Amino acid sequence: MTDVHRTADRTADRTSDKTAEETHARRRARLAEALGEHGAGAVLVTWPVNVRYLTGLTSSNAAVLVTAAGEAALATDSRYRETAEAVCAGVEVVEDRDVAGVLLDRCAGVERVLVEGDHMPVGLFQRLSERPSGSHPGRRPALTPAGGLVETLRAVKDEAEIEALRRACALTDEAFSLVVERVAPGVTEREIARWLEVAMVELGADRPAFDSIVASGPNGSIPHHSPSERRVERGDLVTMDFGARYGGYHADMTRTVAVGPPAAWQRDLYDLVRRAQRAGRHAVRPGATAGEVDAAAREVIAGAGHAERFGHGLGHGVGLEIHELPFLGPGRTGRLEDRVPITVEPGVYLPGAGGVRIEDTLVTRADGPELLTLTTKELLVL
Amino acid sequence: MTDVHRTADRTADRTSDKTAEETHARRRARLAEALGEHGAGAVLVTWPVNVRYLTGLTSSNAAVLVTAAGEAALATDSRYRETAEAVCAGVEVVEDRDVAGVLLDRCAGVERVLVEGDHMPVGLFQRLSERPSGSHPGRRPALTPAGGLVETLRAVKDEAEIEALRRACALTDEAFSLVVERVAPGVTEREIARWLEVAMVELGADRPAFDSIVASGPNGSIPHHSPSERRVERGDLVTMDFGARYGGYHADMTRTVAVGPPAAWQRDLYDLVRRAQRAGRHAVRPGATAGEVDAAAREVIAGAGHAERFGHGLGHGVGLEIHELPFLGPGRTGRLEDRVPITVEPGVYLPGAGGVRIEDTLVTRADGPELLTLTTKELLVL
Repeated sequence: MTDVHRTADRTADRTSDKTAEETHARRRARLAEALGEHGAGAVLVTWPVNVRYLTGLTSSNAAVLVTAAGEAALATDSRYRETAEAVCAGVEVVEDRDVAGVLLDRCAGVERVLVEGDHMPVGLFQRLSERPSGSHPGRRPALTPAGGLVETLRAVKDEAEIEALRRACALTDEAFSLVVERVAPGVTEREIARWLEVAMVELGADRPAFDSIVASGPNGSIPHHSPSERRVERGDLVTMDFGARYGGYHADMTRTVAVGPPAAWQRDLYDLVRRAQRAGRHAVRPGATAGEVDAAAREVIAGAGHAERFGHGLGHGVGLEIHELPFLGPGRTGRLEDRVPITVEPGVYLPGAGGVRIEDTLVTRADGPELLTLTTKELLVL
Repeated sequence: MTDVHRTADRTADRTSDKTAEETHARRRARLAEALGEHGAGAVLVTWPVNVRYLTGLTSSNAAVLVTAAGEAALATDSRYRETAEAVCAGVEVVEDRDVAGVLLDRCAGVERVLVEGDHMPVGLFQRLSERPSGSHPGRRPALTPAGGLVETLRAVKDEAEIEALRRACALTDEAFSLVVERVAPGVTEREIARWLEVAMVELGADRPAFDSIVASGPNGSIPHHSPSERRVERGDLVTMDFGARYGGYHADMTRTVAVGPPAAWQRDLYDLVRRAQRAGRHAVRPGATAGEVDAAAREVIAGAGHAERFGHGLGHGVGLEIHELPFLGPGRTGRLEDRVPITVEPGVYLPGAGGVRIEDTLVTRADGPELLTLTTKELLVL
């Protein structure tokens, strides 16, 4: 492909153009409101997923400037101009390879412009801070890195976004049901991963949401094991962590199955993780802190003496990225809001022996969480 | 998956551990040599692909510190520790979530440490620059952003890397031959993209190297068109830009085919782009500048009066990333070295009418470029 790589999804902005235009305008308006708290006159957004969230344009080289007054301008290069003008109705489109610089040139009157501190490379930040302001020499705005400006808005989804996630999770469930019956002694971890990924795409996914994790037997003690040529053996637990991307939205599900009758320790470990995962899911509600939800599951595992064997956070938000706000972890004080899609995925990992992880994607709702991944959590004995 | 997303490939570091260990040590030694020119005592590498290049570890949260003396230390979190210790023989492994901070704490004696200016987010850079140096208060090294330190080394591949690319390109050729015969009036762009991606994975690819581009009829005028529900019609040109990732290495190929007998303007446009692409390939040699290679193809297109319709660079390096050094474009003065895999992909885009792009992945060789994508460039009339 031509240089600079697009990571587009293929279906996102298929909703009626009018609705999409209004949605993006509403998001920019909320971002503009947030500028006040930072005492900034404008924000320059360059992270591709955030540019897309605010304008609908999927591009690897674009930037959006949003002013406190709510005005917006989009810059991109020639490869995306035609698409940008079609997609981003209501936003002025500027063509320039230096997408950040050309937009900053319009900020001569602005004292302070926020940039994305979690994303903008320090080299670009320094270049932009030092370059002469094109149109108004000497009147260059001060650039201030700020974290999570757009990510905070993205955490709460609208119903159209949740519907895309619901579809992504349904494709994930369906792929699991097609593939699990082929899991048997002799197949390799890589074969299982490939079957899952082919199934998801054939069923209609944009693509897999991430490189699938398949960990069998002792490999199950590595939370992010990379699928290997190891062949599944009778007596293994097999953990599959995978998901579909649909309309740009990422599903995430983990199931651990037994190949042949499980040993007592395997059944006990599975039941423990299942109880922890249920406790975590039941703690998910608007108003709960991320730390409270994490603790609900972690205490179950700690109570069984395995606190040290659960080394990662309980879960994370999902949406246009596979990992986004909020993150569930010990001591996190941020509170969940309504309509926040999130994973709940406790695991216990026993070096040399194996492990179990069970993960669902669900959505916070005032009347109790909505489960999006519907595959059974009963122990499947293949 | 557990929070923080791995983008691992599955086969890369399968080469004999000993060979891999020596390869990574050699790469770190070359990086250490480069530090001298920058007058720095150490470099902190945090970009995942670069960490992998220097250590063999595929992780989304790891950092490597390489000193001018050639010593190396790797930091990662609990999810990757077990893998890191298995893969990174000869490198000390430190477990900490703050992978950059824990390594900087070991630089108390160092005056200046380079960081990756093209990758490190400005927010992290500021946090690291201001944090108290853990073990030696008051003796914090100065951090200096530098660009392309590891990327420059990565541009020249060893034969094992080229073999992985050769395999990735063979999978790409094979997928094309399987899918092209299904391209016919009535099929949609998205169907073709899905067929290509499923074929590549079923043939043994890690995954598609990037989201495939399929542009039919008038959509062909958009270089990075996102595959749509448009149905291919008799009389269309259809451009397919796709590739397989194998062993972590990215293939990249584009072909444009005709559905039904092409009109005269379509045949003329195809012949023009084919001649430009051939001229570009023939200009690829060690010692040539990136600008010379670009010009060889661009002049053919300009000579036909279409200079304005070829708006992107001629090509780019490929390897552990789909776009990496070197980049071929007007006026670029950097010289190609030996064993540099690169794409040559001129295109002409006629708004409202359509377009043609032809792209190969090839490798610079002293005795003439080695072509890795072998699919015919004759106009296929389906």
